[in-house]
Amino acid sequence: MHPHTTVILPMKKMLTNLDRWLDLAVAFAEKKRFPVENLLQARLAPDQYPLVAQVRVACDNAKGAVTRLANQPVPSHPDTETTVPELKARIAAVLRLLDAAGPDDFAGYAALKISLPWMAGKWITGEEYCQFVVANFYFHLVTAYSILRSNGVELGKMDYIGALDMRE
Amino acid sequence: MHPHTTVILPMKKMLTNLDRWLDLAVAFAEKKRFPVENLLQARLAPDQYPLVAQVRVACDNAKGAVTRLANQPVPSHPDTETTVPELKARIAAVLRLLDAAGPDDFAGYAALKISLPWMAGKWITGEEYCQFVVANFYFHLVTAYSILRSNGVELGKMDYIGALDMRE
Repeated sequence: MHPHTTVILPMKKMLTNLDRWLDLAVAFAEKKRFPVENLLQARLAPDQYPLVAQVRVACDNAKGAVTRLANQPVPSHPDTETTVPELKARIAAVLRLLDAAGPDDFAGYAALKISLPWMAGKWITGEEYCQFVVANFYFHLVTAYSILRSNGVELGKMDYIGALDMRE
Repeated sequence: MHPHTTVILPMKKMLTNLDRWLDLAVAFAEKKRFPVENLLQARLAPDQYPLVAQVRVACDNAKGAVTRLANQPVPSHPDTETTVPELKARIAAVLRLLDAAGPDDFAGYAALKISLPWMAGKWITGEEYCQFVVANFYFHLVTAYSILRSNGVELGKMDYIGALDMRE
C-alpha cells in the first residue's frame, strides 16, 4: 500500500461525493424555496467553521496531500468562494490535481520532512503526515456532511460512502 | 505502507482520543450539573444514531478492520452500553485487539474477499475494504466529536488530532 492508494484515491472518491452533496443541497434549497447560500453559512457550533469553510479546508487537505507528498509546491487557492458553483469549482481544481498524480510521484515520500505553516518550523515525517492529513481531511468532510444532514438535506449513509465495486 | 500503518495505527490513535473526549463530556456534565447520559442520547439529526451508537459503530469498524484484514473471526460486542464507563470499556476492548495485532498478521490481506453482513453475499477486495473501513470509521468518529462539540463540551481541533511528534 502506497500513499496513492491509501491517501490520494480515497480523497478523490470522497471529494467526488462531496461535490454531489452540494448538488443535493441545491435541490433541497430549491424545493424549500430558500437561498442555498444560507446552508453555506450554517455551522454545528458557533465557534466552528461554517459549511463554506469546511469545504475549503477539506479541499486544502487534499491539495496539500497531493503536492506535499510529491515534494511539490502547494498552489494557493484563495478563500473567496461564496456560492455553490464557486465551491464546486474549487473541488474540481483539486480533483484535477489528484487525477494528474500517479503512484510514481510519491516515490520519495517516506524520506520527506513535512512542515505545515502552523508548526513554527518543526516537522513530521511523510508517513506521519499521511496519518495527519487523512484524519484532518475526514474531519472537515464529515463535518460538511453533518451540517447538510442536520439541516434536513436528503443525504444518507450511502451518499457518504459512495460507490462500492461489489462482486458476486 | 501497510494496513497496520495506514488503518490499524490511526484507528488506535483516534480511539484513544475518543476515550478522552468522553472524559471531557463527563467533566462538562459535572460542571453543568446534568446527567452525562443525556449526551449519550444526543444526535445531530432525528433520523441519525445518537452518540452512544456512534461510539459503538466507530469501535465496530476498528474491530472489523483488525480482524477481517487478518482473516480472523470478528468477536461479538453486544450493543448494551448505556453509560460512559461501559462505552470506555468497549473502546478499551477494541484497543486491546489493535494492540495485539502486528504487521505480520495482515500479510495476506491483499488476496482476501471481504463480505460484510449487509452485502448479501457479495464481496470487495482487501484493499477496497481498507478504503471503506477507514472512511466509515472516521464518519462515526467525527460524528461523535460533533455531537459533543455542538452540545458545548469543551473540545478543540487538537483534541481531535491528538499528539503529533513534531521535531525541531
